[in-house]
Parts: sequence; structure tokens; C-alpha cells
Amino acid sequence: MPPLALLIVSDAAKIPLSMLVVFVSAKVMAELFERIGQPGLVGEILAGVAIGPSVLGWMAPNEFLSALSELGAMFLLFRVGLEVKSSELLKLGGTAMVVACSGVVVPFIMGWGILTLWGASLPAAVFVGAAMVATSVGITAQVLSAKKLLHLVSSKIILAAAVIDDVLGLLVLAVVSSFAKGKVDLVALAVTGVLAAGFTIVVAKWGTRTMDRIVPHGEKLHVGEAQFAMAISFMFGLSLLAVYTGVAAIVGAFLAGMALAESTGPRVRDLSHGVSELLIPFFLVGIGLNVDLRAFSDAGTILLAALILAAAVVSKFIGCGLGAWPMGRTEAFRVGVGMIPRGEVGMVVAQMGLGMGIIQQNVYSVVVFMSVATTIIAPPLLKIAFKDAIKPGQPEVEEFRLG
Amino acid sequence: MPPLALLIVSDAAKIPLSMLVVFVSAKVMAELFERIGQPGLVGEILAGVAIGPSVLGWMAPNEFLSALSELGAMFLLFRVGLEVKSSELLKLGGTAMVVACSGVVVPFIMGWGILTLWGASLPAAVFVGAAMVATSVGITAQVLSAKKLLHLVSSKIILAAAVIDDVLGLLVLAVVSSFAKGKVDLVALAVTGVLAAGFTIVVAKWGTRTMDRIVPHGEKLHVGEAQFAMAISFMFGLSLLAVYTGVAAIVGAFLAGMALAESTGPRVRDLSHGVSELLIPFFLVGIGLNVDLRAFSDAGTILLAALILAAAVVSKFIGCGLGAWPMGRTEAFRVGVGMIPRGEVGMVVAQMGLGMGIIQQNVYSVVVFMSVATTIIAPPLLKIAFKDAIKPGQPEVEEFRLG
Repeated sequence: MPPLALLIVSDAAKIPLSMLVVFVSAKVMAELFERIGQPGLVGEILAGVAIGPSVLGWMAPNEFLSALSELGAMFLLFRVGLEVKSSELLKLGGTAMVVACSGVVVPFIMGWGILTLWGASLPAAVFVGAAMVATSVGITAQVLSAKKLLHLVSSKIILAAAVIDDVLGLLVLAVVSSFAKGKVDLVALAVTGVLAAGFTIVVAKWGTRTMDRIVPHGEKLHVGEAQFAMAISFMFGLSLLAVYTGVAAIVGAFLAGMALAESTGPRVRDLSHGVSELLIPFFLVGIGLNVDLRAFSDAGTILLAALILAAAVVSKFIGCGLGAWPMGRTEAFRVGVGMIPRGEVGMVVAQMGLGMGIIQQNVYSVVVFMSVATTIIAPPLLKIAFKDAIKPGQPEVEEFRLG
Repeated sequence: MPPLALLIVSDAAKIPLSMLVVFVSAKVMAELFERIGQPGLVGEILAGVAIGPSVLGWMAPNEFLSALSELGAMFLLFRVGLEVKSSELLKLGGTAMVVACSGVVVPFIMGWGILTLWGASLPAAVFVGAAMVATSVGITAQVLSAKKLLHLVSSKIILAAAVIDDVLGLLVLAVVSSFAKGKVDLVALAVTGVLAAGFTIVVAKWGTRTMDRIVPHGEKLHVGEAQFAMAISFMFGLSLLAVYTGVAAIVGAFLAGMALAESTGPRVRDLSHGVSELLIPFFLVGIGLNVDLRAFSDAGTILLAALILAAAVVSKFIGCGLGAWPMGRTEAFRVGVGMIPRGEVGMVVAQMGLGMGIIQQNVYSVVVFMSVATTIIAPPLLKIAFKDAIKPGQPEVEEFRLG
């Protein structure tokens, strides 16, 4: 029995106890990390590892926590979207497309190659390759927005490339899983691709214009905080549409934020900021909670984990860095580092492979470890990459008052 | 199969779909109600009834929604607590105690009497009496704070009496359930009572002083929005302690807000306000979702429901109104109306009685109906009772910027 279970004297204790343990451990670790000059969010992810099954065993992933974690990721990306103008992102579309494509090809080949050398079956190797493809924009976005770097060109390339990456990752996953099932349906693949890409392009291109017309009508409403209510309803709506077209809910939340970026006032930003301040720790702790270090009992698995992690870091860095090379060395370095975190996307792919019986438990644990470790490695690297752009004395996490 | 289930094409759709349906239906109904001059929160509760099992069947109560509902109630009471100075509340302690006591005795006797006349067993009658005891402060607090009436003496008596009421309700429930089990353990009862009352009094009396000393240290922390993080950690902590001592988590959240009322700046209020704006609709819709009108198929149950509802309204109005009589007629009227809503507390008692096999399914549905109907009846009555105190042109729901 986990030690914390003793504290659940009644059902009524469950919610406040979970909230207290997750939130306080996240904030205490964030404070410690900030004090030693490291990004606070790394502390929050490690808080999840610490209270999770393999260390203290206070908490295990459960439905309630993962729902809050998902909401946290949505509000995080929504908030980031509010800071980004879609017109500026579309201008960088060409570069972002090259970055995303080469950032998909290189990790896929490296993941596939390592698993093949390790003696895994072809479907397993292909699945691990696919799990190494999709960048999780959440971590990088949180670092960039906390340090007020979202206005930089390299930040925008990273965001745009990560969104394209999500669409590409969806296609790779569709190909890989139909390949694993033994038949590839090209028509279905084409439909998936067109739907996902179409949704993203349409919202990015016409979302802002539409919202600029709709939002001012909010003032005529009688209900309190109508603009905030409209904004988050729009966010939930686009997140749902995103899921229907095949991309991640957080991509929809990001696009919603971006569509509202020009029509939204400081009040809506402040209120959304309150929600994210509460929920983002649940997103970060949720990532850490998934790590189960107990799987790493034999030397072979540990070696594989080390190799896959190294490959995950190097392949995105090289793949995306090369894609951004024409922008200059500094930009290439920043973009390469910014695309490293895999986060929840890699975990979903691994879970699917495990469920289909294609990869084994230890390979699954390796992929989850890689996903979490890349989110922990990236923030300090980002700090170095953006060193020249960070103003001295800038706090690690800053409010969004100024928009 | 509920019609909405067709829209859940994948697990990833669940969270955004639930958020969208609950939030948007709540806000649309609130807007409609505000337009016809009724309190928006009645619309939000009715939105829950409408999308719930007995009307449209889009949503049924589930673990995720009830967790959000509980969090919503906690943030609502926390926010209300932030507007109330504990010193002022303690000054009214004597009157509030009389109000709470006579507001417990009268409803208990009427509930017990009606069920006995209806032919129910003694334990069942006693359980329904107990379910009619505890006032849910959430609804009244939301109306009073939305209309900026929290500074009035009658508002403070209502809040203080509702908190005392919760402690008394706990004791009544403890007596009733041990009575139903066949043995009354007086020592255990005394311990429960002392713990619950002690916790409430200690926090109300010394909480503010302690927080006044601790909160300023928040500025030394490196982590972002440290004061907000400290405030809500404190809220989760006190909510948990409240559960441990036997009172409701929301009473802990209210006490936490009150302890922070004097040391908290506008930034923390704004951020908390964002969280409540998101979550309170889930609290209100969650109340409505529990109504299942399909239980009212026979004339006997419908008659019982009407009688119990009438008794619930009249008994609190008379009981609490009499308690506040020395303050004058207007105050007595306001306090009497303000204590009418039963909300979630009555439902918990009914659920316990159902689980112990003491009350039957139709009586359970009657108690749930009474709990929800009193929360719908009270807000328009409150509007009448506080008519003279509401400034003309005052919006129904107002922001908390000024604190």
C-alpha cells in the first residue's frame, strides 16, 4: 500500500490531498531549482518522479491527475498562443516546414537503426522510431514564455515547426500502425493528412480575422467576465476539433490562443494566467509520474535507454538544426535545442505499441524514460542557447500582464 | 447510449468534449437568465438538469466532473473568504450561533414529522430530518459576492451561521448514523464535536494573525507568482485538515480565504478569480446533473417531494429568521432566505442513508430534488430580500478587482 493511502481517511480527503501533495511538491522543487540557477519546471517534473511509483510511491498516475495534466497542457499552450501573432508565424512557415521535416526523418532513422542493431523485430524498431519523431512543444514553450523570449524569430520557428511536427507525427504514426497491422490504406492516410493539415492551416490563416470580428460582441453580453468565458469556450471547441481532425488537443488550444492574440485584452490574459498557474504544475508533475525506474533492472535495458536518449537528443538537434542552418549558427543552435523535448507524445506512441503487443514492457519503459529525460535535458540547454537574449536579472517565471 | 457518446471518437476527445459541453451550456443558460432578470447561477444549475440524465441525457455525473465540481466549490468559498474579515465574523458569533441552532432544530423536526406521517420507518424519518439540516453556503455566497453584498451585517451572519451549521450538521449526522447502527457512542461524538469546533475556532481566531506574518515572506521566494502558490497551497492544506477534523473541505477553503483576507493583494485575487471563473460552472452544473426526474413517476413520490421542498424552505426561513429576529425584520428576512439552499450537503446525507439501506430509492430522489430545488429557489428570493442594498445598474456578476 502506498504510504499516502493511510492519509485518505475518507473519500472527501482524496481531492484536497492529491491537490496539496502535487502542487506543493512541484512548487517546493521549483523553488529549489530556481535557487541553484536551474529552470523551475525541471524541478516540477522531477517532483513528479520523486512522489511517483519508483521513488517515494506517494502517488501513481490516475484518471483525475491525468485529466488535470491534460487541462494544464491545454491552458499552457493557449497562453503561449495568446503571445504569438499568426501572421508572423505563417511568414516563417517555409523554414519551419524544413525544420520539422528533417527533424522527423533523422530521429526516425536513428531510433529504427538502434532497435534493429539491438535485435528487435522490424515492427518494434519502426514503432520506437515513430515514438522519437514528435516534439512536445509544451516544455519549450513554457521556458520561452517564462523568459519572455516568444517574440524572437527562433522561438517562432520552434513553435511553428512543433505544430507541423505534430501533423507529421500523426502521419508517421498512422503509417507505422497500419504497417504493423499488415496493410497500408493509402486513401485513409491521405484523408488524415489533408484533414489535419487543413484544420491547422485554416485556423492559423483565418482564425485571427474571425475572432477580431466576434470578440468585441462579448461586451454586449450580460453574463460576468463574458470575454473570458468566450475565449476559453473557443479554446475547448478548437481543442475538440483538433482531436477530431487527428492532431493533439493542445495544438487546437495553441491555435485558439493565436487566433485570439490580437483581440484579447489584459483581463482575459490575467484570468487565464490564474488557471495556468494552478494547472501547469499538474502537467509537469504528470510527466514525471509516468517514469518507473524499476524497469531498469538489467544492464541491457539500461544501455538501450542510454543509447535511445542520446539518439533522441542528437537526432533532433542535428535534424532541426540543419533545417534552420540557413538562418545562421545561433538560430540553428536554438532551434535544434528547442525541438528536443518529446514529452507526452512519445509516451502515447509507446503505449499504443505496447497495447498492440509490438514492443515489450522494457522497451516501453525505455521510450517513456527517453520522453521524460528529453524534457529535463532541454530547459538548461535552452538557457544556454538563448543566453544572449535573456536580459540580466530577468526572473525565471514572469507574469503576462504586458501581453 | 447517451447521444453525446457518439462524439467521443477517441479517449483524447473526452476531456475537451466534457469541458466544452458543461462550460458552454452553463454560460449560455446564465446569459439567458441574466437577460430575463434572474440570477445567472440558477441558469447554470438548470443547465446541469437539462444536459443531465433526465432531460437531454448528454452527461451523467462522473468522477472527473464531480472532482472539478468539488474544486469549483472550494475556490468559490476561498474567494468568498478573501472578502470577509474574521474579526468581523467573530463579533457576530453569538447571533450566528442562535441562527444556526434554531435553523437546525426546526428543519430536523419538520423533516422527521413529514416522513413519519408518510409512514416511513423511524430511522428513515430521522435520516431525512438530518438531510434537511445542513445549509450549503456556496449558493448564497455566490449570490452575495456577485452582487457585492458581502460587507453587510446580514451577509456576515449568514456566512458565520452556515459555518457553524456545518459543524452542527456533522454532529447530527454522527448521532443519526450511530443511532441507525443501533449504538450511540457518546465519547466518539464528543471527540468529533470538539475537534470540528476547535479547528474552526482556532483558524478563525488566529489564522489571520499567522498569515499576516507568513505571507510577506513570499516575496523572498524565487519561484514565479509565489504569493498565489502559497495562498492556494494553504487553501488545499486547510481543506484537507477540515476533512480530517470532520467538517466539509469547503469550510476549510473558506477559513483559508478568511485567514488571508487581510494580507492578500489584488494579484492573488485576480489569479484566484480566473480559476473560480473556470471552475464554478462545474460546481453549479454538477448540482443540476444529480437531479433525476425519472424517479418521480407516482403521485405519492411527487406529493412527498412537494411537501419536503415546502418544509425545507419554510423551516429554514422560520428557524433562521427567528434566530435573527432581534436584529430587526429586514435582517431576519435576509438571514432566513439566505440559509435556505441545501446543495451538496443534503445529497451526501441522502447517499449515506441509501447506502446503509435505511432510505429507499424514491426517498433518496426526493431529498436530492429538495437539495437542488432549494438552491434554485433561494437566489431570486435573495434578490428580493437584498433589494434595498443592491445599487441600481449593478451588474449581476462583478469582478473582484477592488477586493
